[in-house]
Amino acid sequence: MTRAYNFSAGPATLPEAVLRQAQADMLEWNGIGASIVEISHRSADFIAVAAQAEADLRKLLWIPDDYAVLFLSGGATTLQALLPLNLATAGQTVDYVVSGHWGKTAIKQARPYVKVQVAADGEPGGFHDIPARESWQLSDDAAYVHITANETIHGLEYRYTPDVGTVPLVADFSSSIASEPLDVSRYGVIYAGAQKNLGPVGISVAIVRRDLLERSGQPRADIFDFRSHAARDSMLNTPPTWNWYMLGLTVKWMLDEGGVEEFARRNAAKSALVYQAIDGSGGFYRNDIAHAVRSRMNIPFFLPDEDLTARFVSESKQAGLLALKGHKAVGGIRASLYNALPVAGAQALADFMRDFQQRNG
Amino acid sequence: MTRAYNFSAGPATLPEAVLRQAQADMLEWNGIGASIVEISHRSADFIAVAAQAEADLRKLLWIPDDYAVLFLSGGATTLQALLPLNLATAGQTVDYVVSGHWGKTAIKQARPYVKVQVAADGEPGGFHDIPARESWQLSDDAAYVHITANETIHGLEYRYTPDVGTVPLVADFSSSIASEPLDVSRYGVIYAGAQKNLGPVGISVAIVRRDLLERSGQPRADIFDFRSHAARDSMLNTPPTWNWYMLGLTVKWMLDEGGVEEFARRNAAKSALVYQAIDGSGGFYRNDIAHAVRSRMNIPFFLPDEDLTARFVSESKQAGLLALKGHKAVGGIRASLYNALPVAGAQALADFMRDFQQRNG
Repeated sequence: MTRAYNFSAGPATLPEAVLRQAQADMLEWNGIGASIVEISHRSADFIAVAAQAEADLRKLLWIPDDYAVLFLSGGATTLQALLPLNLATAGQTVDYVVSGHWGKTAIKQARPYVKVQVAADGEPGGFHDIPARESWQLSDDAAYVHITANETIHGLEYRYTPDVGTVPLVADFSSSIASEPLDVSRYGVIYAGAQKNLGPVGISVAIVRRDLLERSGQPRADIFDFRSHAARDSMLNTPPTWNWYMLGLTVKWMLDEGGVEEFARRNAAKSALVYQAIDGSGGFYRNDIAHAVRSRMNIPFFLPDEDLTARFVSESKQAGLLALKGHKAVGGIRASLYNALPVAGAQALADFMRDFQQRNG
Repeated sequence: MTRAYNFSAGPATLPEAVLRQAQADMLEWNGIGASIVEISHRSADFIAVAAQAEADLRKLLWIPDDYAVLFLSGGATTLQALLPLNLATAGQTVDYVVSGHWGKTAIKQARPYVKVQVAADGEPGGFHDIPARESWQLSDDAAYVHITANETIHGLEYRYTPDVGTVPLVADFSSSIASEPLDVSRYGVIYAGAQKNLGPVGISVAIVRRDLLERSGQPRADIFDFRSHAARDSMLNTPPTWNWYMLGLTVKWMLDEGGVEEFARRNAAKSALVYQAIDGSGGFYRNDIAHAVRSRMNIPFFLPDEDLTARFVSESKQAGLLALKGHKAVGGIRASLYNALPVAGAQALADFMRDFQQRNG
């Protein structure tokens, strides 16, 4: 068994300790005669696992008591459809700031339900920068303002929390949640698919300020209603129990490692290693993102031509550095450096980049 | 490690061979340097796993080519909301036949979107029988007719496919799919949460006759659109990959064991063992369901009083027979006998029932 350094953008690398625990528990969990994936979500055993995961996540992210934490099936895209259904009336204006692919996806899911106002759009600039707060055209009567905290494909990240007044700020944190300390109280809703920093694919988290649960929203099935999920502790129906358990193990691991302050340090160190390899390459490697908003989580970069790009992907894989091929929407290379990727992984990539440049530059 | 016989109604027991494979693969799958849960859903490795699972499911259930197979996050309840959105226009009439708890749930999810006509309702009879086809009041212009093939809580099961003419028949097969041969071509849509017979919780399957994908449905987010999922091979967004992989292992196991004909034999044998223990008890155990529609999958039964019921639950657990407590909606005992529960498990339960009666009758 050889585990490589895995730079996948998601589903992504998990802590080896978490996988080993899952492996040990696979046939029987905690002496109960069955696997955790084989028992009722309404059993005392699973309810304890679920409650512990929520308590640990609240501790990890310092989530205030006036926020509900929902554990839902589906990923961020599903949540992007549920947001207007729960937070806005039919046809109400909502403001979206677009800083990359996922901001556009969020709008696509919302459009059938609300009047989407694009408050600012980075696409004319090729998504190389996040539109400055001063340029945003916010509506007077928006139900909420939506941003994408980190753009997984384009590699841009807010390095501050924008002030949008009294309108609730809703943020897709799928690819940067738990990567550094975060003031939850500045947001109305924070949501994330789990498969980057929180654990396995197949479960998502929505952190919702409780007063927003009082909004009537618009006609929708009970299963699409945040209030119903909150009232039933996310057990309105059968939740993805194994995924929830794995999320709990991953959150516990993050707490044991030192919490978000420690991961902020590691993520700063990891991204600095890779950006230094890019910036110190004399143009052999190129990242086009404005330095102030470069993502610490996902670093897209380019080589001089397609042949070198293909060779880089192939040789890095041989060297035990997995999943570095860029997303097809932008091409090139992409290195994702989530919490479970150790600093040694980023160092190995930076070393490989220098070696590859020496041989091919 | 002692694995007990697990009668949970879902999430439910899985084949030990499947769990052992998942355990072996947990840190590294197929020599790729990462777990299957850590790689991109768009990687060639995962796409092959997903495609094999679909091919094997098509083979297991003899699914004709003119049916799409969708692998979706969320469970049957989510699908119950998606059905009217995809198959009916806003406010259109749909016919629902209610034979238990899950038929009512299906209606609850549909009501915000369509005019639900209850074509027949078993509740006045205490859900002890499925309303006879002759009694159904079908609408002339219904978008579809919905039935629940097996009621997991109340323990009733259709033992025939009702003829509803040219209107598409939509059936919730969550707790009986793959339990016996099934003529898919008689249905417009067959859907199921996976966590009973198909594998792990956290993924569901919708088998949709392709002409129904042409229906315009009603305004909905792209992520709620069956057409979009079908067009993208259920990879419109990041699917629950580990759950899909586990479903694939479980389906492969069912094929290896002899397919649905073999499971039909085993399930008939298992349910006969338990029903014989009930019917042969002289009234000590009681099952109230009309014999013609008794479920082979979920057998609810009652003891003379609450004390004996509690003792039965406690002593059976001590004897290595798990999760026999009945659903709170009906009380008593419930034994779920899904495909992964061996005949020896049903025999052990029947033996325990006779022994318990001797000691307490």
